[in-house]
Amino acid sequence: MTGLRVWALDGIPEITAGADLVALIADAAGDTLVDGDVLVVTSKIVSKAEGRFVQADDREDAITAETVRVVASRTSATGHTTRIVENRLGIIAAAAGVDASNTPVGTVLLLPVDPDASARALAAGLREATGAHVGVIVSDTLGRAWREGQTDSAIGAGGIHVFEDLRGGVDAEGRPLVVTQPCVADELAAAADLVKGKASRRPVAVVRGRADLVGDLDLPGARSIVRPAEKDMFHLGAAESYTAGYAAGAALSSTAE
Amino acid sequence: MTGLRVWALDGIPEITAGADLVALIADAAGDTLVDGDVLVVTSKIVSKAEGRFVQADDREDAITAETVRVVASRTSATGHTTRIVENRLGIIAAAAGVDASNTPVGTVLLLPVDPDASARALAAGLREATGAHVGVIVSDTLGRAWREGQTDSAIGAGGIHVFEDLRGGVDAEGRPLVVTQPCVADELAAAADLVKGKASRRPVAVVRGRADLVGDLDLPGARSIVRPAEKDMFHLGAAESYTAGYAAGAALSSTAE
Repeated sequence: MTGLRVWALDGIPEITAGADLVALIADAAGDTLVDGDVLVVTSKIVSKAEGRFVQADDREDAITAETVRVVASRTSATGHTTRIVENRLGIIAAAAGVDASNTPVGTVLLLPVDPDASARALAAGLREATGAHVGVIVSDTLGRAWREGQTDSAIGAGGIHVFEDLRGGVDAEGRPLVVTQPCVADELAAAADLVKGKASRRPVAVVRGRADLVGDLDLPGARSIVRPAEKDMFHLGAAESYTAGYAAGAALSSTAE
Repeated sequence: MTGLRVWALDGIPEITAGADLVALIADAAGDTLVDGDVLVVTSKIVSKAEGRFVQADDREDAITAETVRVVASRTSATGHTTRIVENRLGIIAAAAGVDASNTPVGTVLLLPVDPDASARALAAGLREATGAHVGVIVSDTLGRAWREGQTDSAIGAGGIHVFEDLRGGVDAEGRPLVVTQPCVADELAAAADLVKGKASRRPVAVVRGRADLVGDLDLPGARSIVRPAEKDMFHLGAAESYTAGYAAGAALSSTAE
């Protein structure tokens, strides 16, 4: 019965600005980590350690500041507006990833400044502190197109392959696996969410059993998972695209008159 | 060290049309299954057991037949056209989920006729055969908007909660978790993919440690994960939406003349 084991670390305290995450995670892990373990760290505690708190009154301004591009927005019958935006990390998320749950009352939390850099620093620090050759994923809870609900995904990665590249491989019949490129970083983040629990304070999970994915600290980070807008067939919401097309069609007709 | 264990079953033979999946999975599992285990079954073997083979020459026709609606299509510089379509199950996927890898030479494979019904039948059969109160997810490998690569997701579910509904819950500060609805079925499918391996013949994984998600056979299936097009801000590709808007804008201008 080989396979994966996935568990959450107990004993991580409430994180405040300036906290030493390497020391706190190493303490919580004790001597349990081994070479090839992957630590999946909820982005929220990375943000807290970085002091990325903003007053809740400034939430809408904070979302606007984090926004590079509005991808889609819709106002419900009750007047609530959902804004799906591309943030400065290239990630497409509701409210630009600005988070209002499990933060001190009166505050909201921005995403880490550079989740890939944070993940690499954590991986380097934890390798040093524990002696175990570990990889680190920084995860966030993201909605998606076409499917209800959310899954945890990788927004930062250090010392780990984010894709399992099978494109040079063959299937069981010997035919090339041409387009298959599993995003193992997102799958690891999803697996970790199953043991963390959203309402509890267990923001770090360990995944053991895919040591083959752990590697050098200079491997590409989670930024490489983000599809550039110009390659994405869904880079803009359907209503927004229609509106832009409508304006262009109307303008061309007027010009042609 | 509680948490999850995830492992793939050895000993599932190549599946042919008419195969008794309940018997084959129960044999492979032996006496290892316990109450609350979740079996994640790759849709490919469900399709094979259902005899959903089509001659490869008819692949494009098969995709067209499975397609309810073209969501987006793009032709690359090399002339290869990618069609993202909504299939008859409501799932948005490249090539309507028609699969050409790990199938007998000269054939392609359609998705199961009704993956939720298949998952429920497998759960019922495995509960009967093994005495263990298990849940079943039928998984498929899906691409997504905005992010490169693929992850395994749930396209069928039987005897398992597909969402962990926290919407009535509170965070650690006592504030309501208003919009959080983790899609645990997709997270379980993702975790299982990490142990299955695309090129090997290990199409069934067991996830142990989330017995709280296993329940009655009449729970909503994976169809409930599919967001209806009218609620989806990305129900049509950006280029397709732009084109439709352009035509409407141009037509209105002509009418107005």
